[in-house]
Amino acid sequence: MTSPIVAVIGGGQLARMMTPAATALGITLRILVESDEASAAAAAHETVVGLPTDPDAVQRVLASPRPDVVTWEHEHIPAEVFEACEAAGVPARPGLGALRFAQDKIEMRRRMDQLGLPNPAWREVATLADIEEFLAAHGGEAVLKTARGGYDGKGVRVISDAADARDWIESAADGGPRLLVEQKVPFVRELAVQIARRPSGDARAWPVVESIQRDGVCSEVTAPAPGLDPTLARQAEGIARTIAAELDVTGALAVELFETAEGLVINELAMRPHNSGHWTIDGSVTSQFEQHLRAVLDLPLGDTSATAPWTVMANVLGGARTDLPSALAETADPGAKVHLYGKGVRPGRKVGHVTVSGDEAESTYARAVAAAAIVRDGGAA
Amino acid sequence: MTSPIVAVIGGGQLARMMTPAATALGITLRILVESDEASAAAAAHETVVGLPTDPDAVQRVLASPRPDVVTWEHEHIPAEVFEACEAAGVPARPGLGALRFAQDKIEMRRRMDQLGLPNPAWREVATLADIEEFLAAHGGEAVLKTARGGYDGKGVRVISDAADARDWIESAADGGPRLLVEQKVPFVRELAVQIARRPSGDARAWPVVESIQRDGVCSEVTAPAPGLDPTLARQAEGIARTIAAELDVTGALAVELFETAEGLVINELAMRPHNSGHWTIDGSVTSQFEQHLRAVLDLPLGDTSATAPWTVMANVLGGARTDLPSALAETADPGAKVHLYGKGVRPGRKVGHVTVSGDEAESTYARAVAAAAIVRDGGAA
Repeated sequence: MTSPIVAVIGGGQLARMMTPAATALGITLRILVESDEASAAAAAHETVVGLPTDPDAVQRVLASPRPDVVTWEHEHIPAEVFEACEAAGVPARPGLGALRFAQDKIEMRRRMDQLGLPNPAWREVATLADIEEFLAAHGGEAVLKTARGGYDGKGVRVISDAADARDWIESAADGGPRLLVEQKVPFVRELAVQIARRPSGDARAWPVVESIQRDGVCSEVTAPAPGLDPTLARQAEGIARTIAAELDVTGALAVELFETAEGLVINELAMRPHNSGHWTIDGSVTSQFEQHLRAVLDLPLGDTSATAPWTVMANVLGGARTDLPSALAETADPGAKVHLYGKGVRPGRKVGHVTVSGDEAESTYARAVAAAAIVRDGGAA
Repeated sequence: MTSPIVAVIGGGQLARMMTPAATALGITLRILVESDEASAAAAAHETVVGLPTDPDAVQRVLASPRPDVVTWEHEHIPAEVFEACEAAGVPARPGLGALRFAQDKIEMRRRMDQLGLPNPAWREVATLADIEEFLAAHGGEAVLKTARGGYDGKGVRVISDAADARDWIESAADGGPRLLVEQKVPFVRELAVQIARRPSGDARAWPVVESIQRDGVCSEVTAPAPGLDPTLARQAEGIARTIAAELDVTGALAVELFETAEGLVINELAMRPHNSGHWTIDGSVTSQFEQHLRAVLDLPLGDTSATAPWTVMANVLGGARTDLPSALAETADPGAKVHLYGKGVRPGRKVGHVTVSGDEAESTYARAVAAAAIVRDGGAA
């Protein structure tokens, strides 16, 4: 049989976790990895070593047999890559017309405003005076962000004094990333909703989840979000559907949301499989990785139902240890699904995750957190 | 972190389906494949091209960095491979002491008799007179088998006249495989039970399944076996536990059983992941492929609970078509989990399977069979 070829730019754990789904579906995954040591390198069906900024490497990704489609596992894709895809006649999904809203937070906020979707108060800032003005109008505290390049808490700073922004303002004036400030949203908790959309328009969402962040990094995700008002759940899915359709997103889209006393507020967008959707590997009929591949190939989308009443995903972050214990040997919980990313351990770096499904939310959460701690720190015994 | 290395001899779909579990667990899978076109070749983390009968290829599998363990995806493993593993100090699991009972049906029947486990009437045969005698004593019909080398209906022949055995008898006299005859068991249906066992002794079984064969090849598997008497289910698991422990099986063991009006009768053994356990990928907390890897690495075994009331697996056999349709594009059922093996299509060859889970046995079965037919033959639309 002819095997579809999907090219993926970026060799981190998101590309790595696409490979099991690709293998099952008979899809060949050709991954542009930064090095042979990249998380996705050994798992890939075919690898090209290089960076997306290297035109030769991009040409090798597009070489014959040509991929059916090119997709991304991160947003840091130069416009030249899209041009190379177009020249080669290979569709790039999501396209730059969509991805730029995930690349640039100012573009994103502006577009959400145009669509009438719930933004926090925000503005682009270029001077300390701009920031002072915003702080004065919003209770003396705000979130300063670089428009581009941020992730996992990087490129984000909570400020209560314009002077705290001096270095970034100077950098922006010097050609560095543009800046925006956002109201510090008084949220009850953080939610996320995942959806995937085909070029032909069909889209399917997963149940809305609760996401717990620690130090700006996703720590645990509970699916579905416990006790979520069904009206808010429908509203969250509606926001995701609107963004996917109006921005012409193809593939996976994650919308991170704040739940406040007044309703939902959009936090961030990601146009790729996302940490808040890792639970779907073990907790949904169709994982976000399989669905992303189906969507970018314009194949029918799979069922997004949960397979258990509760599923909790807990990230494993590298601690002070320089190597991980044999995670399985020490994880006493036989129902804990362990996912390791094959990455060197550095403090705070995401090196794996653990998923547990169960019939009751609190005990399932406790099991997932306990198993992740053992994977990270080793067993107490 | 240090990544355990598991070497697998054989590059078919069973090795291919070990790779997603290995990727998740951070295990490096080094597979001895017959060719670059083998089902497991693209999916493997590392490949060695060669046959298990080629000592050089086996040495490359055992080369530094040495695998932590060597395992098999089929039973046709020469004794020299076990010797090479021993010389290299690499454990072979299951070992030859266990595997020979899956390699040789005469050895197997003899051992089952010794253990007091339920065999059909059987005997080794070397002459046409031996066969005539057995036929006369067992209603004029019997199943003739080669002791070695059979699979998927090959090496098995139903006979009602000794003359039907003449070619095999002559071949056996000429140094070909030895033969046995077995009573043709008047079964109600066929069952199978999967278990995995660690070298340290711990073993976990999955729910007993019903297996439907067509032309000697597994066609569908329903988990759990509908309406199975709980006493028989416990007995089936007990048989698997006894065999695993007494034969010192490490890794996955499948016991195929006949359910008769008088109880259970052992049909065949396989010491590896088995077609009757493919449902566990989508229908159990721990798949047989993950469990096999855990077991041969002597890691704690995972939970073998089913994740849905019913799961049905339907094989996709190559038909007259010489290429498969884009299976996903035409499989309208969003809950059908499609698994393709990346193999060329030949009539009757297993080229993939489809799994469906549901709340009701009959409709789940119908969905799985319908989806498999569409993958095989293309959509009607």
